[in-house]
Amino acid sequence: MENLKAVILAAGEGKRMKSNIPKVLHKVMGRPMVMRVIDAARKAGAESIAVVAGHGSEQVIEAVSGEEPDVKFYLQESRQGTGHAVKQAVDFIGDKNDVFILYGDTPLIKAETLADLYDFHKKEGNGASIISAHVENSAGYGRIIRDRNGNFVKNVEDKDAVGDERNVNEINTGVYCFNGKRLKEALSLIKNDNAQKEYYLPDTLAVILEKGYGVNAMETDDVSEFMGVNSRVQLSEVEAALKNRINVFHMENGVTITDPSQTYIGDFVKIGRDTIIHPGTILEGSTEIGENCEIGPYSRLTNMVVGNGTSVQFSTALDSYVGNGTKVGPYAYIRPNSKIGDNIKVGDFVEVKNSVIGDGTKISHLTYVGDSDVGKNINFGCGTVTVNYDGKKKFRTVIEDNVFIGCNANLVAPVTLKEGSYVAAGSTVTKDVPEGSLAVARSRQQNIEGWTKK
Amino acid sequence: MENLKAVILAAGEGKRMKSNIPKVLHKVMGRPMVMRVIDAARKAGAESIAVVAGHGSEQVIEAVSGEEPDVKFYLQESRQGTGHAVKQAVDFIGDKNDVFILYGDTPLIKAETLADLYDFHKKEGNGASIISAHVENSAGYGRIIRDRNGNFVKNVEDKDAVGDERNVNEINTGVYCFNGKRLKEALSLIKNDNAQKEYYLPDTLAVILEKGYGVNAMETDDVSEFMGVNSRVQLSEVEAALKNRINVFHMENGVTITDPSQTYIGDFVKIGRDTIIHPGTILEGSTEIGENCEIGPYSRLTNMVVGNGTSVQFSTALDSYVGNGTKVGPYAYIRPNSKIGDNIKVGDFVEVKNSVIGDGTKISHLTYVGDSDVGKNINFGCGTVTVNYDGKKKFRTVIEDNVFIGCNANLVAPVTLKEGSYVAAGSTVTKDVPEGSLAVARSRQQNIEGWTKK
Amino acid sequence: MENLKAVILAAGEGKRMKSNIPKVLHKVMGRPMVMRVIDAARKAGAESIAVVAGHGSEQVIEAVSGEEPDVKFYLQESRQGTGHAVKQAVDFIGDKNDVFILYGDTPLIKAETLADLYDFHKKEGNGASIISAHVENSAGYGRIIRDRNGNFVKNVEDKDAVGDERNVNEINTGVYCFNGKRLKEALSLIKNDNAQKEYYLPDTLAVILEKGYGVNAMETDDVSEFMGVNSRVQLSEVEAALKNRINVFHMENGVTITDPSQTYIGDFVKIGRDTIIHPGTILEGSTEIGENCEIGPYSRLTNMVVGNGTSVQFSTALDSYVGNGTKVGPYAYIRPNSKIGDNIKVGDFVEVKNSVIGDGTKISHLTYVGDSDVGKNINFGCGTVTVNYDGKKKFRTVIEDNVFIGCNANLVAPVTLKEGSYVAAGSTVTKDVPEGSLAVARSRQQNIEGWTKK
Repeated sequence: MENLKAVILAAGEGKRMKSNIPKVLHKVMGRPMVMRVIDAARKAGAESIAVVAGHGSEQVIEAVSGEEPDVKFYLQESRQGTGHAVKQAVDFIGDKNDVFILYGDTPLIKAETLADLYDFHKKEGNGASIISAHVENSAGYGRIIRDRNGNFVKNVEDKDAVGDERNVNEINTGVYCFNGKRLKEALSLIKNDNAQKEYYLPDTLAVILEKGYGVNAMETDDVSEFMGVNSRVQLSEVEAALKNRINVFHMENGVTITDPSQTYIGDFVKIGRDTIIHPGTILEGSTEIGENCEIGPYSRLTNMVVGNGTSVQFSTALDSYVGNGTKVGPYAYIRPNSKIGDNIKVGDFVEVKNSVIGDGTKISHLTYVGDSDVGKNINFGCGTVTVNYDGKKKFRTVIEDNVFIGCNANLVAPVTLKEGSYVAAGSTVTKDVPEGSLAVARSRQQNIEGWTKK
Repeated sequence: MENLKAVILAAGEGKRMKSNIPKVLHKVMGRPMVMRVIDAARKAGAESIAVVAGHGSEQVIEAVSGEEPDVKFYLQESRQGTGHAVKQAVDFIGDKNDVFILYGDTPLIKAETLADLYDFHKKEGNGASIISAHVENSAGYGRIIRDRNGNFVKNVEDKDAVGDERNVNEINTGVYCFNGKRLKEALSLIKNDNAQKEYYLPDTLAVILEKGYGVNAMETDDVSEFMGVNSRVQLSEVEAALKNRINVFHMENGVTITDPSQTYIGDFVKIGRDTIIHPGTILEGSTEIGENCEIGPYSRLTNMVVGNGTSVQFSTALDSYVGNGTKVGPYAYIRPNSKIGDNIKVGDFVEVKNSVIGDGTKISHLTYVGDSDVGKNINFGCGTVTVNYDGKKKFRTVIEDNVFIGCNANLVAPVTLKEGSYVAAGSTVTKDVPEGSLAVARSRQQNIEGWTKK
Repeated sequence: MENLKAVILAAGEGKRMKSNIPKVLHKVMGRPMVMRVIDAARKAGAESIAVVAGHGSEQVIEAVSGEEPDVKFYLQESRQGTGHAVKQAVDFIGDKNDVFILYGDTPLIKAETLADLYDFHKKEGNGASIISAHVENSAGYGRIIRDRNGNFVKNVEDKDAVGDERNVNEINTGVYCFNGKRLKEALSLIKNDNAQKEYYLPDTLAVILEKGYGVNAMETDDVSEFMGVNSRVQLSEVEAALKNRINVFHMENGVTITDPSQTYIGDFVKIGRDTIIHPGTILEGSTEIGENCEIGPYSRLTNMVVGNGTSVQFSTALDSYVGNGTKVGPYAYIRPNSKIGDNIKVGDFVEVKNSVIGDGTKISHLTYVGDSDVGKNINFGCGTVTVNYDGKKKFRTVIEDNVFIGCNANLVAPVTLKEGSYVAAGSTVTKDVPEGSLAVARSRQQNIEGWTKK
């Protein structure tokens, strides 16, 4: 039996986003908001998850189920309030388990906070538990009203607050953990006899309390974690907050980030101790950086694995491996499926794609190495091109250890340069070059005197 | 007859700028400050504009009249106060129209605010109307003094404020709309019997009031719009404020800007819905970006037109057109007068200049395409160069549809590669290549065995 | 006789840094924190300097003595408080001179402030002088307690503050200037009869006062200058503060910095008037930029000398000279020991290394110029490579004035292109080219018709 579930409300249109994309699919640090809320619920222990979709539900279902095939979806066809939204998922909510009610547009919510809420909820044996936050100015928020002993009395919406209630600065963040049975019972009893004709989720609290079950709010101090996104300006604000949160995590872990305001690190990235991240660095996906590296400035690494003591500056690298003590850039482009070893130079205006590069090799400048198996201690002359494509098929180039390739050479694949061979500058090599041989394929120079005058 | 004019005071030296350029010509987001004030006045309805120049007047006149040939200039030869400055333009101020008095070093002033001032001025039938702003701390500013009914009584300079006046937090922003006749009358009556021996424009208010004409201040809350620039630190502050204002405009319009603090968008740029702007993006001039694009990171686009669904990363592009679904960069450079179609790849270390590129063509890497007419579905091998210059003249290269160009090929213009032709890697092509033909121009490879040992 | 010395306490481990590098060697704007404190002490007049090292002392000694061979080192083997740390250097502290006591992890301390402290100390003839700062919230800091006449009474640690002392907002910054004799006397008398069993440097103040010598605090308002670094988050904060301080300096000097939050300028960099620095510019080392330049965006210049009216965009340049009116980039890489003259173009995807380039020369794109002596008004075709390395040795290429080099040419060094000579596109030049001659080294083009179908 499952102990903990989560229902994520994701039906809102988000008109102010002015977008063809449903609001909850907008990305924060590269990940859709609703996925971030699902991640947090999962990490906090939710064993099954439901999403209540509405506007753009097909897009939401497609995007979420692509990554999380077990998530269940419920449709809220008309907008009749948060209580109505949760009601759509009433079949999902069990009698014997607890359930988080979360919003798909609050991407900053932390798993730790949800786990704390669940602990609080279990420990107190509540029918419903809320996260509240102490704020300086509570205008616009629902307030948590307590009695003089600190017991929860009620939730009051901003517009209904009267007298001293207006001065209460403990607000309802909108994050709940309910006992499933109590929630279902209460949902069947709340009414929409209000101006908007909507069913409000907070109204369940009074019902639960009335029935004699515990309701309480877990107090927190940081309201920013619960910030909802209703516009692209707010989207940029949560992006900045999340960026900062991740950067602080790495700094506390022993990474130097010289300018955190200009450093963009994805959630799943790992970085070793004493590595320095320079401004304008973007680390994405499953990137792992070793120790004592220097990454940046102005570089993007996506799904990269990088060893220790390596530097990458003014470069872009995707879906590849780079070893130890290697220098990349400035202005290098490493494309997917490359395995670049140790103490290598991948210099300026160099592209490496789908290739293995052996230790100690130098690809200093203006060179393209694609679909190639390159050995150790090779010197690529400037302007070398591995000609891997004939218009129909791609072929591989094999370059054995200790080869020297002259400048502006073409290596027309499939071709092998055997160990210790040498290619003269300006040669187009179409046949294999035997071990220790020189390949030359160029015309003799003629000087035509007096030509310039003519 | 003109109803509304504007006089812009632009005579100040700006000593603290430490510059050889007159203060009002320093640029904010790429546009001289005085031009921004002229823009705002024009957009608010000013039909003719005068600039009072002083320090560096030749430079000011040249810069302004280059863009705005109808602007009239008046010279303030000695600095005797703001009233004296306006007096220089007295011939410009008509009797039957209204006139804004503005400062050339307040580049954040909005046209909407000026239009509001003019409406306020007309509606109240004032002799003079001021914009005032409510601030927390009024120290250093002139205060607006009102009677208990809220009627304007006087403007008091900071140093002259006494008693309760010191606590007034409604300040004079220095932006005025005058009835022309009333202003001219008042200018002839104000005196310079003060410590500085200067004529102060605010002194005209008392004169106008005394003569029985209305004076009032339109209250605003945001003093930042009226911020004047006296130093380069302030210049960077107005730059940041304007950057933010423009970014918010685009976000509210349906554009995602992942890091607004690092995004620089010119005033005239247009961006379509659901386009994402990554950090370090600079969009300048008349640039227009379509919908669903991804622009940046670390890219500069100047006077570009870009279609829908196109991406540009780590690249620079000027004065050109790029179609739909095209991928530019990383590290591409598009130079002026290029027309790049749909679903094209302009890849790494590629320069395109003054060329037309047909749909579906791939220019993947390390290639220069200049002065060329390129068809559809062409494959440029790595290292290809269109040789467009012989040291004296430039010539065009014509490449018809479905051509395949081998790596490191030179195409020596004027030359035509006919439809479906093929150029072997490493060839220098100097003659036209017929339809469906292979052009080859290279030497046979020789392998000299045992060479490396020698 | 020396009048002024400095003892810098640099023994702390900095556990929260989570680093294998001793805390004081972590860099702020490219320079180790302890070196910044040494710089400030030297500039304020300290004639000899001692560093008390502890954790990682070998690394500290090596790093500091590498740059400052005259610095003396003392070892604090166990951590028994600040007084104990200074005691280790007691042989260094003379009887007849004054001595600053500073912390190696406070990199923002200004030389001017230390010089002011020394002046204050001498003028008052104190036994000990402190810098104090007025703060809003003094919780956590030692307080300066004065009598009603403003005379210094005592220093009270936060935990020992009682009654009114808790409300005192004048705090001890931890920066001292002592009379050497008084300090030595006091150090021999302070005790470690406290909870931590440590010797506290502030305890010397009471001793000195008791002996009848003057103690006083020089009041300041800016506590940020004394901020200590205990974590990488704080490291990033001092980095940001120093970045801003340097940027303001240059702006006040007549340099436009369009976005100071994204501009990184080293301490020793010089920039001429009316130069504009665009976002993402990193200027390091001994870089000197002339007047009316445009530097950036997204460029790094290290130890560069740049003339007037030159632009550098999206480029990297190291240890070289660039003249006047030259255009570099986008995407150029200038490597060490280059001397690039006036009105030159170093364009996109161009590397220049260890070369001299004459005025008016154009290296427009996709070219490598290495180990070359290049004259004036030369045109480098696209894809040109100077072949400077044969796998064993490097050789120089000489190109005289007015040479024209065709595209994708190889110049195999050692080789000379004499004045006004011309190299045909696609040629590999291995022999000298006489004056005014055309060098051509390529195969004749063959067109094989109907090839594509086969």
